[in-house]
Amino acid sequence: MKEIFSHRSIRKFKSTPIESEKIDRMVEAATRASSTGNMQLYSIIISTERDVIDKLSPCHFNQPCVKSSPMVVTFCADINRFSHWCEISGAEPGYDNFGWFVTSAIDTTIAAQNFALEAEHLDLGICYLGTTTYNAQEIIEVLDIPKGVIPITTLVVGYPDESPELTDRLPARAVVHYQKYTNYTSDNIKGLWKEKEELETMKEFVKENGVDNLAQVFTEKRYKKADNEFFANKYLDALKQQNFIK
Amino acid sequence: MKEIFSHRSIRKFKSTPIESEKIDRMVEAATRASSTGNMQLYSIIISTERDVIDKLSPCHFNQPCVKSSPMVVTFCADINRFSHWCEISGAEPGYDNFGWFVTSAIDTTIAAQNFALEAEHLDLGICYLGTTTYNAQEIIEVLDIPKGVIPITTLVVGYPDESPELTDRLPARAVVHYQKYTNYTSDNIKGLWKEKEELETMKEFVKENGVDNLAQVFTEKRYKKADNEFFANKYLDALKQQNFIK
Repeated sequence: MKEIFSHRSIRKFKSTPIESEKIDRMVEAATRASSTGNMQLYSIIISTERDVIDKLSPCHFNQPCVKSSPMVVTFCADINRFSHWCEISGAEPGYDNFGWFVTSAIDTTIAAQNFALEAEHLDLGICYLGTTTYNAQEIIEVLDIPKGVIPITTLVVGYPDESPELTDRLPARAVVHYQKYTNYTSDNIKGLWKEKEELETMKEFVKENGVDNLAQVFTEKRYKKADNEFFANKYLDALKQQNFIK
Repeated sequence: MKEIFSHRSIRKFKSTPIESEKIDRMVEAATRASSTGNMQLYSIIISTERDVIDKLSPCHFNQPCVKSSPMVVTFCADINRFSHWCEISGAEPGYDNFGWFVTSAIDTTIAAQNFALEAEHLDLGICYLGTTTYNAQEIIEVLDIPKGVIPITTLVVGYPDESPELTDRLPARAVVHYQKYTNYTSDNIKGLWKEKEELETMKEFVKENGVDNLAQVFTEKRYKKADNEFFANKYLDALKQQNFIK
């Protein structure tokens, strides 16, 4: 499918606002996604006003793509709406637990990817923001998110003001297994990463970061163990605060 | 996009095997998805052999769609491969924590939805199996899944042997919020579910289940509080066993 194979993350947008018909179409695309029991345990928060985007920006470490985008879409797992429906129907909801966090997070993400692909189908560009789970509590405050709702991922969306090349991927054989999982030997691993490590852009990236190799860019610069553990605990706190775990 | 708006879950398949070119194309579609840091922290396990599918079937409560499908695809979050690469590169990986479970689960799900949409683009039908997180430990055993890898979701894939109608959805206004989250009043909730509750199929569904209303089908029959908590704890145990949480 054209949209899938031509996907690039877009981080620079024109200031052109997005037509409301297109926004409606992307939302509808999201709602057509599969969800567990057809329960639709997600909410899509579409922020287009400057002051809301400006407040969201630090939650995403002031990445320039947030400031420059005309629309920031925060996808949340939502057991609040469904539980409220159960309560007014004389039914006892039991979704405030870790299992339904995982279930609703999966359903939210499937909906987000439909939204993203439909955006690209409508000539818009998107970028996912992984920072959503790092600063979920701050996002909750900015967006008045009630208990029973937790941010999962964010898309910035707009008309592209750049046209980057397709980015590299590991060869497909790196991620696929037939029948059962076949574990990797060190030689396998070396072979699978060889092409990526030899790219000029990656060599440059290693040099810029002042480390010995590409793996160290990830472990010493981008996603360090101590930071990872800090943000993991922060997200767990947010999940407790929002009643997804005890 | 046609594939998104014509999506139906397919639960009855022809026995026709899926062409290997199509399988390759679906895998490639999955790998084109965005992933955090382009780290591709997922593995896709494609099971087509009868004896593997027969062993997976009870992990999914013997749903007939598993037995009848020519291909069962188990999508796993995978920090094993990346951590192995770090280790042989003299870099200390720090991804064995809850934060990277969430991050890799999101990336895995985005890849799965690309796979699903590409399957539909190639005239195949799919159904997601939420049972994947209920019986992750059993799936881990059947598929020889090592530590650092955890099942997130499963697709059954095949040529459709049924053509169901589009299923209902809540109106889009139920799931979308503009600028910030607007919480629901009980009257809002009643209005949003009204159409669904009045569908003849839903009235029939309530009657079959011997309960008073649709919400009670979910809370008393399909996803009961005690069961939800049981499976939540089971998945937490699997995450500990697989080294995603301490």
